[in-house]
Amino acid sequence: MLKSDIGIFGLGVMGQNLALNLANNGYKVSVYNRTEDGEEKIIEDFMGTITDKQKISGFTSVEDFVESLKSKKIILIMVVAGKVVDSVIEKLLPLLDNQDILIDGGNSNYLDTAKRLNHLKNYNIDYLGCGISGGSEGALKGPSMMPGGSQRAWKYLEKMFQDISAKDINNKSCCQWMGVDGAGHFVKMVHNGIEYAIMQVIVESYDLQKRLLRLNNNEIEENMSSWKNLELNSFLLNITCDLLLMEDEHGDNIVDTILDKSSQKGTGKDTVINSLKYGIPSSLISEAVNARFISSFFKNRQELSEIYNSEIEFKGKKELLLSDLYDAMYFSILLAYIQGFMLIEEFSKLNKWDIDLVNVIGSWKAGCIIQSDMLYTLEEALKDNLKESLFENNIFSKLFNSKETGLRNCVSTAILSGIPAPVLTASVSFFDSIRSEKLPANLIQAQRDFFGYHGFEKVGGQKGEVFHLS
Amino acid sequence: MLKSDIGIFGLGVMGQNLALNLANNGYKVSVYNRTEDGEEKIIEDFMGTITDKQKISGFTSVEDFVESLKSKKIILIMVVAGKVVDSVIEKLLPLLDNQDILIDGGNSNYLDTAKRLNHLKNYNIDYLGCGISGGSEGALKGPSMMPGGSQRAWKYLEKMFQDISAKDINNKSCCQWMGVDGAGHFVKMVHNGIEYAIMQVIVESYDLQKRLLRLNNNEIEENMSSWKNLELNSFLLNITCDLLLMEDEHGDNIVDTILDKSSQKGTGKDTVINSLKYGIPSSLISEAVNARFISSFFKNRQELSEIYNSEIEFKGKKELLLSDLYDAMYFSILLAYIQGFMLIEEFSKLNKWDIDLVNVIGSWKAGCIIQSDMLYTLEEALKDNLKESLFENNIFSKLFNSKETGLRNCVSTAILSGIPAPVLTASVSFFDSIRSEKLPANLIQAQRDFFGYHGFEKVGGQKGEVFHLS
Repeated sequence: MLKSDIGIFGLGVMGQNLALNLANNGYKVSVYNRTEDGEEKIIEDFMGTITDKQKISGFTSVEDFVESLKSKKIILIMVVAGKVVDSVIEKLLPLLDNQDILIDGGNSNYLDTAKRLNHLKNYNIDYLGCGISGGSEGALKGPSMMPGGSQRAWKYLEKMFQDISAKDINNKSCCQWMGVDGAGHFVKMVHNGIEYAIMQVIVESYDLQKRLLRLNNNEIEENMSSWKNLELNSFLLNITCDLLLMEDEHGDNIVDTILDKSSQKGTGKDTVINSLKYGIPSSLISEAVNARFISSFFKNRQELSEIYNSEIEFKGKKELLLSDLYDAMYFSILLAYIQGFMLIEEFSKLNKWDIDLVNVIGSWKAGCIIQSDMLYTLEEALKDNLKESLFENNIFSKLFNSKETGLRNCVSTAILSGIPAPVLTASVSFFDSIRSEKLPANLIQAQRDFFGYHGFEKVGGQKGEVFHLS
Repeated sequence: MLKSDIGIFGLGVMGQNLALNLANNGYKVSVYNRTEDGEEKIIEDFMGTITDKQKISGFTSVEDFVESLKSKKIILIMVVAGKVVDSVIEKLLPLLDNQDILIDGGNSNYLDTAKRLNHLKNYNIDYLGCGISGGSEGALKGPSMMPGGSQRAWKYLEKMFQDISAKDINNKSCCQWMGVDGAGHFVKMVHNGIEYAIMQVIVESYDLQKRLLRLNNNEIEENMSSWKNLELNSFLLNITCDLLLMEDEHGDNIVDTILDKSSQKGTGKDTVINSLKYGIPSSLISEAVNARFISSFFKNRQELSEIYNSEIEFKGKKELLLSDLYDAMYFSILLAYIQGFMLIEEFSKLNKWDIDLVNVIGSWKAGCIIQSDMLYTLEEALKDNLKESLFENNIFSKLFNSKETGLRNCVSTAILSGIPAPVLTASVSFFDSIRSEKLPANLIQAQRDFFGYHGFEKVGGQKGEVFHLS
């Protein structure tokens, strides 16, 4: 039998669809899944759906699976993040040769990825941590891929991975090199953090239209549809429009039947925790995570809504608010990307990962959840002027300046009306803070020295020179 | 020589002042400090200042120090948090007997405290992690103390600790039992988190008066002084008033000479990280931490202030804004306490620590950095109605309802004027979210199911029953 170009370990939906995607692109694939814990028939069922058995071979023995691979073996591990990844690596390790390649395509923590990479260096096995976004459909038709780790492995895999990845509107692959160590999984984590913020911006817009303007789902969809034809075109806004029109078997709008209690799997939190550890403000992502927390304080909310009910009827002009809302969404989404980039830049600098933000955008422009037209603008801005800080870029400053008034009006209306818009609101706080020549931090420093003798620097003083009140 | 009631290991300013405080309260104290790393003369110098050598004995030998203690030895460790604490414990352990007591009075991480407590159980040594707040002056005159860990040790130490602690206006000790395990240091961490938020609320008020109303330090001090005579009386507002009037040797206002770049030692971050891990919104503390981060983006701020300069002149009524600002400060500070309490409640429940919030307030009412008149109101509310959620309490609902309009007007003005007020602003977002009967989280759940098949619950459905879009 012809040996396979790559093996996939773990046949969840993602693993299955990546196997099909590889086969569709002309690669011969071996797939393996365990046969315990109710997974006895996974390989059998999957192989039953494969018409061309020349392209995909299924295995339930790890030894046979590894044996079926071409020399310089490449194995993509698609299992649940966590300790399972380590046990899979230990299982495979005795069967591998010098410079064989292992890839973790799951949502692993970037620190674990860096540890595994170092561990495998001792065995001369090349390791890649590759963030993959786009869900099961992306896996099949072309995901966004964020590979990081062994550069030697990346050079070897570049063509194959770029073949199966999504392509942007210029037909450029959305699988670009992120950087060494845990850079791939780190960028994927930040991707998910930004995803939290953008989703929350969209639902805040929905909520303001619903509660303040009393629009129904069809009307909200009409507005959002018209916006995506302007500059807000994005995967998330597109699916939101679809969702707003979706009906269940009784002809009811599905979104109205869903309980307003949102869950999370943790990558948003992880992004915020990492920002905190590294001193980077990520207030938009943080407020999006908080919004999900608060939504699950369900009983409190029901009870409190009866005690504190002070929503005020909207008396402004509907068209004006809608136009402000459009600006506010644009401004906030742009800021969510930028806060994510600030975090990536800082991590890259401190860890010497050498992440190129243009590559990050390259991987995100299609295939992934946060793909949007705005990323093309961001790319243009970054390419245009790499040396300056993100905000100082001319393209951005024009955008921010043109949308700023709309954002302020919209948020102010929300605040006066009692409708929460935490991420839109946090955008104003962040923007006004980072553009303030003077902040009141001098008084904070005075307080800290007063009660804790922590010291302060002086205006016009030497950097690092510390003074005290007395 | 008369044996000592307690030994203090580590003679930093806090250790020295606690020794004096104990001696002033009639306890005989032994003190120890190492004689390496430039600390050769610490004991000698300190003992030189002691007039009554009957009350305090100094040691530079650990063995002599421990030997000088009454049987059932009590040693308060006052060293820098971290690994030093472990090495001190290992040094002392061979010299201790059954049921002797070790207390860590530093700012240790509560998880470390819980580990050390368990480790010392093996040796039958009773361990307390005791948060101490109030700075060096508090240590001398009466600090706020937050003991947690071994209940047996607490019973034995209760009188001594309550003797040296601060007393509230009813002469009740501000050293109350927090709970088992790491409860003491956990509550101290949250105390510091709340401290970040309150400090930021105060400086936002200062900044709005300065930048928007163009008031000078004296005028701002006048306003703040009048507010503290109403309901805002607190240690932090008091010292702020002092600081606003403080002059340097050239007769300049000191706060104007201080660089607006604030630092932090980490307990604010830690509080937010823990909130995130446990699913509790702590947006006020989080925005206060972010404000410190952003203040240190100093160069960016200078440059961006030239590109984005859109502050609008204030055209409203000055008196009205000041009255709104007062309400906003009150509302936000109350909310900062409540977010802290929510976190303590959740941790206590999950870890079975059995923390009584009335005790927490009891420890905070005097001696510590966040002491304030508002805590008496909080205590009254909690005692009045322990079963209900904090927000549903009648006392609170009256307060929130009466200050709400002021908060909204003040924040809206800040937002329209371009002056950042991140914590005041986050208060509105949080309040409006948690009092919303319906949040747009239904649409988040729809999006998540669409791209990730994560499932959702239905309105009126069984709790935990999961549905999908199709």
